[in-house]
Amino acid sequence: MLSKNQIKLITSLKQKKYRLQHGLFVVEGTKTIHEFLQSDFKLDTLYAIEPFNIDAKKEALISEAELKRISFLKTPNKALAIFKVPRPKPIDHSKLIVALDDVRDPGNLGTIIRLCDWFGVNDLVCSQETVDCFNPKVIQATMGSITRVNVTYLDLEDFLKQVKQPIYGTFMDGTNIFNKELSETGVVVLGNEANGISKNIESIVTEKLSIPRFGDLQTTESLNVATAAAIVLSEFKRR
Amino acid sequence: MLSKNQIKLITSLKQKKYRLQHGLFVVEGTKTIHEFLQSDFKLDTLYAIEPFNIDAKKEALISEAELKRISFLKTPNKALAIFKVPRPKPIDHSKLIVALDDVRDPGNLGTIIRLCDWFGVNDLVCSQETVDCFNPKVIQATMGSITRVNVTYLDLEDFLKQVKQPIYGTFMDGTNIFNKELSETGVVVLGNEANGISKNIESIVTEKLSIPRFGDLQTTESLNVATAAAIVLSEFKRR
Repeated sequence: MLSKNQIKLITSLKQKKYRLQHGLFVVEGTKTIHEFLQSDFKLDTLYAIEPFNIDAKKEALISEAELKRISFLKTPNKALAIFKVPRPKPIDHSKLIVALDDVRDPGNLGTIIRLCDWFGVNDLVCSQETVDCFNPKVIQATMGSITRVNVTYLDLEDFLKQVKQPIYGTFMDGTNIFNKELSETGVVVLGNEANGISKNIESIVTEKLSIPRFGDLQTTESLNVATAAAIVLSEFKRR
Repeated sequence: MLSKNQIKLITSLKQKKYRLQHGLFVVEGTKTIHEFLQSDFKLDTLYAIEPFNIDAKKEALISEAELKRISFLKTPNKALAIFKVPRPKPIDHSKLIVALDDVRDPGNLGTIIRLCDWFGVNDLVCSQETVDCFNPKVIQATMGSITRVNVTYLDLEDFLKQVKQPIYGTFMDGTNIFNKELSETGVVVLGNEANGISKNIESIVTEKLSIPRFGDLQTTESLNVATAAAIVLSEFKRR
């Protein structure tokens, strides 16, 4: 049986300020919760309609109606878990790093985290204005990939100024990425959905790349940041 | 001033059966409407809060409150237009064709149409179970790209059986796409979000491809169909 206070706490975690205040976030769905349980993330409480048989002190059986009250999903799965927000691990500069300059859409961030996982990118660094990776929509979109990617929020300009390796960014007027020799280390910056990479960050980028367009040149269309990330990461990783 | 019947007609177009019945669909947003007006698509009626100064018989000025009543968006833009569903044009087999085997998510279909536009793919063929491309969420996600991509719904199995060129498909156990010589013509099949390419279609595919994973091999993660489409199309088009 869920108390009013529990319901209030869980539903408050939809908002970033309460996630920060409590140091907790929500994960939904049996499959994704299992991925978190097998990772370094620390469970606070699991609410499930069928037993998981983990630590009994941390597991509460609830009814479907109760799950519906606390779930952020239109169609709740069979369980909802509260995990502790971890401290980011140190950033590993010996491998390719992906950096996001104010990506705002939770679905885009989730897709990019999933791509980092796929392409073996361990470190994703995000400007402070980038959407919070513990936003429930991001967690849902990552499908568990966030357990394998170290996401660090920082002052992106300061961080990039200290990077000694190539800093790549995608622009409309950069060098064709398909013809360019790409480093195995360094940072790849991806920009905001509406405005691309900001002027301050652009001035620090050492290698401007572009994804060539093959269609009708009259179109003013750009690519979605997550699909651009897919193409860029596959170019960096293919050998 | 909008009549009750007009409101009823417009809001009914959210559903496929009414789009089929009336042969009409909705486009929202000034920028996207302008792309449709410049294309071969035929305008039925434009509802706008500021004049577009096109054909006066087809343009109706409405209030913001009225726009809110007919809009499918949480934050309506300044205009909503009704266009006629076009007949698909003949399929051009001299260029690369993309085929979708039961893609269900409107956002994924919209993103794939936008990618086809970017990479100069003129023909997108879809199984009958693929989400309708005139669904308002698809139209919104294409950002106008659908005016430049010919989308045809057909019996995918029948269609592929008649194709004389290579039929590519992405699978977990295919040949590494990064090492494979890819044809400039033929068909690339992308599968359903949950189940991939169906068994019937798999048996017709002549070239099985896979996008290699570079991350931790213990992960069971797959790529989202739209990000897979981005990687596959960039591999086919890069030279």
